[in-house]
Amino acid sequence: MKHALPVTREQDFAAWYQAVISEADLAEESGVRGCMVIRPWGYGIWERIQKLMDARIKDAGVDNCYFPLFIPLSFFEKEADHVDGFAKEMAVVTHHRLKGIDGKLVPDPDSKLEEPLVVRPTSETVIGQAMSRWVQSWRDLPLLVNQWANVVRWEMRTRMFLRTSEFLWQEGHTAHADEADARRETMRALEMYRDFAESELAMPVVTGEKPENERFPGAVATFSIEAMMQDGKALQAGTSHYLGTGFADAAGIKYQDKEGGQQLCHTTSWGTSTRMIGGVIMVHGDDDGLRCPPQIAPHQVVIVPMLRDAPEDDAIIAYCEELAAAVKALDAFREPVRVLFDKRPGKAANKRWAWVKKGAPIIVEVGGRDVAGGNVSVLRRDRLYNEGGKLASAILPKGDFIAAAAATLTEIQASLFAEAKARLDANIRRDVSDIGALAAAFEGKNPGWVEVEWARPTGAALDKVIEWLKEHKLTLRNAPLDAAPASGVCIFTGGQAVERVIVGRSY
Amino acid sequence: MKHALPVTREQDFAAWYQAVISEADLAEESGVRGCMVIRPWGYGIWERIQKLMDARIKDAGVDNCYFPLFIPLSFFEKEADHVDGFAKEMAVVTHHRLKGIDGKLVPDPDSKLEEPLVVRPTSETVIGQAMSRWVQSWRDLPLLVNQWANVVRWEMRTRMFLRTSEFLWQEGHTAHADEADARRETMRALEMYRDFAESELAMPVVTGEKPENERFPGAVATFSIEAMMQDGKALQAGTSHYLGTGFADAAGIKYQDKEGGQQLCHTTSWGTSTRMIGGVIMVHGDDDGLRCPPQIAPHQVVIVPMLRDAPEDDAIIAYCEELAAAVKALDAFREPVRVLFDKRPGKAANKRWAWVKKGAPIIVEVGGRDVAGGNVSVLRRDRLYNEGGKLASAILPKGDFIAAAAATLTEIQASLFAEAKARLDANIRRDVSDIGALAAAFEGKNPGWVEVEWARPTGAALDKVIEWLKEHKLTLRNAPLDAAPASGVCIFTGGQAVERVIVGRSY
Repeated sequence: MKHALPVTREQDFAAWYQAVISEADLAEESGVRGCMVIRPWGYGIWERIQKLMDARIKDAGVDNCYFPLFIPLSFFEKEADHVDGFAKEMAVVTHHRLKGIDGKLVPDPDSKLEEPLVVRPTSETVIGQAMSRWVQSWRDLPLLVNQWANVVRWEMRTRMFLRTSEFLWQEGHTAHADEADARRETMRALEMYRDFAESELAMPVVTGEKPENERFPGAVATFSIEAMMQDGKALQAGTSHYLGTGFADAAGIKYQDKEGGQQLCHTTSWGTSTRMIGGVIMVHGDDDGLRCPPQIAPHQVVIVPMLRDAPEDDAIIAYCEELAAAVKALDAFREPVRVLFDKRPGKAANKRWAWVKKGAPIIVEVGGRDVAGGNVSVLRRDRLYNEGGKLASAILPKGDFIAAAAATLTEIQASLFAEAKARLDANIRRDVSDIGALAAAFEGKNPGWVEVEWARPTGAALDKVIEWLKEHKLTLRNAPLDAAPASGVCIFTGGQAVERVIVGRSY
Repeated sequence: MKHALPVTREQDFAAWYQAVISEADLAEESGVRGCMVIRPWGYGIWERIQKLMDARIKDAGVDNCYFPLFIPLSFFEKEADHVDGFAKEMAVVTHHRLKGIDGKLVPDPDSKLEEPLVVRPTSETVIGQAMSRWVQSWRDLPLLVNQWANVVRWEMRTRMFLRTSEFLWQEGHTAHADEADARRETMRALEMYRDFAESELAMPVVTGEKPENERFPGAVATFSIEAMMQDGKALQAGTSHYLGTGFADAAGIKYQDKEGGQQLCHTTSWGTSTRMIGGVIMVHGDDDGLRCPPQIAPHQVVIVPMLRDAPEDDAIIAYCEELAAAVKALDAFREPVRVLFDKRPGKAANKRWAWVKKGAPIIVEVGGRDVAGGNVSVLRRDRLYNEGGKLASAILPKGDFIAAAAATLTEIQASLFAEAKARLDANIRRDVSDIGALAAAFEGKNPGWVEVEWARPTGAALDKVIEWLKEHKLTLRNAPLDAAPASGVCIFTGGQAVERVIVGRSY
């Protein structure tokens, strides 16, 4: 069986990942360090993610706003407890004019800013300041805002979608009257992310609380959704933080309660980003490219005509147009089916493979013989080959295909999820109880994760655990919310275990 | 008649504009120079604009992509014909790390970039470079891409929505095989903008070609839509440029034609921005705040319950919920009607005025007496007062209101357009043929525009015209596409006129 990509997952997973991005026209290097160009198919997936996530955010009563790209440097001084220990990778704007001087273009020295501006790495500080203006009374609470924006974190080693200096994301920020309400919102956002990942991305995840060392700086508690890639590594695909009153205190987010007293708000923040696209690739991709879950596929059904520069071409085109119109009139997932009739110039076989690599869920080919017989030739991207290793094209009466198209899309979405879920479940071991066995569990290829019992140590005891994990290139992912209770001994400290935590390699 | 804003248009138009932005919760100063915070109602309008414009862009076969925020400084050297004369206001990133040094947070000197990065003021150069990779053959043409993004142009004097250092926009960029196709695209985008402004924003515009001095640098031809604000000034609300082959030459956008020869592409670009929201305010606002055209109103119908902390409140709330559900089930402009049942704590009268200021198209109030009578009290934002100067609330049977609600929204959209169109038409003079009269025409308050015949001079002759206009605080807007042919003498040069051009004050 010959595959469409120059490299298979088995041969070199990292090279395969790059090949999918390139061959599926998802993104490419931009020539600007650490920044990528997101191409139409990749951006189309992001637009679907935005649309579906935004609907969930709005349904929760959260309002979208837009905050400045630039944050004055002094805002970070508040954040830095000890300025002298502070060092953060961020893009810093220091001048506001370019000028030609002595035949060279340079930042005009006369345009130096009095206070440098930082390109936002996240908007906590600037949104906190706005919240301090917007919240006056208990009547203003909860205050729920979200922003879709680009952010910049200067990264030394970048990987497309997973770690880029500039990336696109949404960041939710909320303020509440008390801890209970803020914690409720933290868990609501986490559950929104879990359901989004599983329903829309067909990507099963483990939801849980991050250990202390993995918390967002300043957070009281950080929760995450963790997905398992096909190489067994974990990808943190979304986080939700309960921030306590610390951020409200720094920004002055206070309210007058019903009795007239002044109270600090309890705040939360939660975010997901274009990183999710990297997860979709590594969860659903195969050796022929991406397999795009129908819910986020920019086109769900692609129709490819097999033209021969012959008089019968007109009949094929008319037949395809009628087919496209009929499928567009269908609803799948409560939206009209997204159909593309690909009539660009080019050979049908090349176009078919281009759509296989991009991962269009259903590819329909139509030739003269199909028109004559009233048929279509249908390829499902989730079952590309039959048992003999041949392309599993099915010739169906056109009417039968149309009648089943919406259900087929639902089926593909479900089958991608089921496949990934079975892999996740099969690759979490829960039978490891001593540290030597834990190290050994990660010796093979694509080792997956191990869920162990631990005492949730803090401070120096935790540092020792992290050190051991680092030596073994391992990390703590999260303590799953639905894990069984701990009853034994901590694998790291030998003390009484209090919960279960997932250990794994990660992106 | 007492109005909801602290200042009227008549008293001080500029102060009134700021008051609308503040009182309608559209946006506010962010504390970051030249950057604003766009609040939920303002951002909701932008989301509506994005949704409706994006549908038109996609319908034209244009693909959305995303390009980097940062552009290497060297890209601008190519653009600068004579580097020594070049000076441009742009935000320049020079460092990639903040560090605490001697108790102060500063850009870490060790993190100085080898090549400074410019925060994109527009993406021509970086998109041109991508196009040069994507276009190989005539089969790849036309290449049609669009980007929704934030851009930064360092502005010394800013005004919210109209001129801010950071703003949000869409920029379309296209490459074509020949001039005819590129010019067709330029005019398609222009016509898309005209129809969008008039249909969605209810904002009548004049479409035409900009004179040479107002062209986008490097463009062969620039076209614009110009809207008239209530103070008679013009607002350029969208532009479309035919760029010839100059940009393709600089970026190397070439294709192999059918005969195997190498050809330069002809390119275009076109853009609109959050500036349009400023236009909507100044075209439709009145002394009570914004009047939001239903097509772009985040909520089209707002239901305000008149609660009294009394047992009958439950019945009012149930009645409002039923009403909201019934109106939500309606379609207006082929979308479900957007309804908000505003049940936040607070007095009904305060809420009513908050929605009047925000410009919700229909405000429905429901009190105990309405419930008992099966009625609703309806306020149309486009006809707020009756002839006696009282609030023109109409008490209607609930069923009658629901039956007419979608049609009422259509009517409001049409009435806002008709009012603005009548004002535009009444305030363009075409009877001025000597330069003294032209100057005199702008002496009164809110003078509107004058369409004059001119010879379309170039070079030094044009400079002289511009100088005279500058002295009189006037500008050339555009030469309307649908103007009558010129038959007389150029008002500026005395030569043979070749077209008509609009003169006016502008934002």
